[in-house]
Amino acid sequence: MEKIRVLVVGYGNVGRGVLLSLANQEDMEVVGIATRSVERVRKSVNNIPVVSINDPAEFMALSPDVAILCGGSKNDLPQQGPEMVKYLNTVDSFDNHSCIPQYHSSMDAAAKAAGHVAVISTGWDPGIFSLERTLANAFLPGARSYGFYGLSEAGGLSMGHSDALRTIKGVADARQFTHAVSEAVEQVRRGENPDFSAGDMHTRECFVVLEAGADAAAIEAEIKAMPGYFAPYKTTVNFVTQEELNSKYNGFPHDGCVVAASTTGAGNPASIEYRCRWASNPEATANVLVAHARAAVRMNKSGDCGAKTILDIPPKLLSSQSYEDLLKKFM
Amino acid sequence: MEKIRVLVVGYGNVGRGVLLSLANQEDMEVVGIATRSVERVRKSVNNIPVVSINDPAEFMALSPDVAILCGGSKNDLPQQGPEMVKYLNTVDSFDNHSCIPQYHSSMDAAAKAAGHVAVISTGWDPGIFSLERTLANAFLPGARSYGFYGLSEAGGLSMGHSDALRTIKGVADARQFTHAVSEAVEQVRRGENPDFSAGDMHTRECFVVLEAGADAAAIEAEIKAMPGYFAPYKTTVNFVTQEELNSKYNGFPHDGCVVAASTTGAGNPASIEYRCRWASNPEATANVLVAHARAAVRMNKSGDCGAKTILDIPPKLLSSQSYEDLLKKFM
Repeated sequence: MEKIRVLVVGYGNVGRGVLLSLANQEDMEVVGIATRSVERVRKSVNNIPVVSINDPAEFMALSPDVAILCGGSKNDLPQQGPEMVKYLNTVDSFDNHSCIPQYHSSMDAAAKAAGHVAVISTGWDPGIFSLERTLANAFLPGARSYGFYGLSEAGGLSMGHSDALRTIKGVADARQFTHAVSEAVEQVRRGENPDFSAGDMHTRECFVVLEAGADAAAIEAEIKAMPGYFAPYKTTVNFVTQEELNSKYNGFPHDGCVVAASTTGAGNPASIEYRCRWASNPEATANVLVAHARAAVRMNKSGDCGAKTILDIPPKLLSSQSYEDLLKKFM
Repeated sequence: MEKIRVLVVGYGNVGRGVLLSLANQEDMEVVGIATRSVERVRKSVNNIPVVSINDPAEFMALSPDVAILCGGSKNDLPQQGPEMVKYLNTVDSFDNHSCIPQYHSSMDAAAKAAGHVAVISTGWDPGIFSLERTLANAFLPGARSYGFYGLSEAGGLSMGHSDALRTIKGVADARQFTHAVSEAVEQVRRGENPDFSAGDMHTRECFVVLEAGADAAAIEAEIKAMPGYFAPYKTTVNFVTQEELNSKYNGFPHDGCVVAASTTGAGNPASIEYRCRWASNPEATANVLVAHARAAVRMNKSGDCGAKTILDIPPKLLSSQSYEDLLKKFM
């Protein structure tokens, strides 16, 4: 079997997760890492070529079939995506939900011009959760699909909100955990299809390390008033030492669910719920990206090109199992 | 918008559910019911043409785009499926898991010869659960996917096991509820990927109405010894009156889940769980069949033919939403 040759673009948490995930795939292999920081990344990896993302001749010399773009949605992907897909198939986790139509359109044009497949906006949300929202709506017409995050006791670590806390003057370090409001989940499960505002569904718990001499009360007030990030939510602020933060609130745990409930035919209650729990959010995202890289290569080999989401992909293409085995063991 | 024209084949619980489901679809309409019992069905429906399943000229005169085959897997579909797909696209819920590869092959040949699409073995299991097993395995390589049924307090009504009880001499009526073994579900959630025998995962609860003069103890012993159906399971037999059966154990409730747990990258625990609850199992199956009828027509219009399962279908084709709306509201 010829293995699918993967170029990993970016070497942050997700990029490292992709390398670990590829090591577990029998039908795929990593051919190199493309990065803006060649020297720095070369110090951390062994036996994998590290090349410059700005030198297409260099990364294409590794003969990759597909690039997994592990950069961020804000600064990296809008520019990097359309540029990379000129050279090869791509997969990314562009997760700025409101900009997905626009990103799709830009990637679609670039991918079609080059004859490549660009799988965009995949991971667990957007990605698996997008699929589950679509399926729930198709199978239970009239049901609204709701996404909840941080249903586990610890809650889910939000990188974006942790970063927002760290921008505040006087904050040395911080991490933010999102919690689902249990009663809101129950309302959806009961089929009430409620109208929620953001603050009805989630609460926010902050663990903040102060700089020496910082004013705790003023910082707590500033956090709670932060528009978009914290103001709409019931927010708790806990001041901790750096040691406590490092030992008790470490890692990248996250979890969530998609819930939809309505009735079938003669008014019989029906509900669907998809739930996932990840001790490492970036590794989970990486696993999903890797399965989609397999699909991207297969779709392109069968003559397809353009921007694709998880909603465009026949699910069998995500699996390493043969169609015969899927019929026999998975149907 | 031109509506998708659906022929409903068979008028049992699922067929009636399909009619109710079609009434809720803006882009689809029922054009007729094809049945072996034309006279009987005509007495129960108004304003819908009822035609003979044995008269292709008659049912094709209704200009259907797709037939939803609501017959049983044992006696109806193996013969009816390959025959119907000669004339039009079909969707069915063939659910004899071990015979799916063989049924696929027979439907694939017939569908390709006729240039039609035959979506086979869809519903919630096989169907949604097959998809979720495949996705869980693709996203968490090494995780085994387990299916549990009857997690709700009432358990899930098994039609097959209820029928088996009714074949016993001295049994006037009966219904069988399946229950998941909670500790087994927890083992899977913990990522133990255990080896189960069937009896470790489910128990069986029977509600039996005796004929006058029947020997309760002998019947209970006969039930518990029934190979395949009850012998491998912890089985409880409750004798009830017909009135109790009708009032307390009525309807067709069912529920279940697919659970898979393993680790990502550096050994971080991860789990995926898909859960559904249906007050009416046949209506839920009907809703899934109807969404697949939409996909079958779309695939055929785009030039595709042959046997398809849920694993072959780009999920967007199941949805009545436009691609623009899917990108904007569901991604």
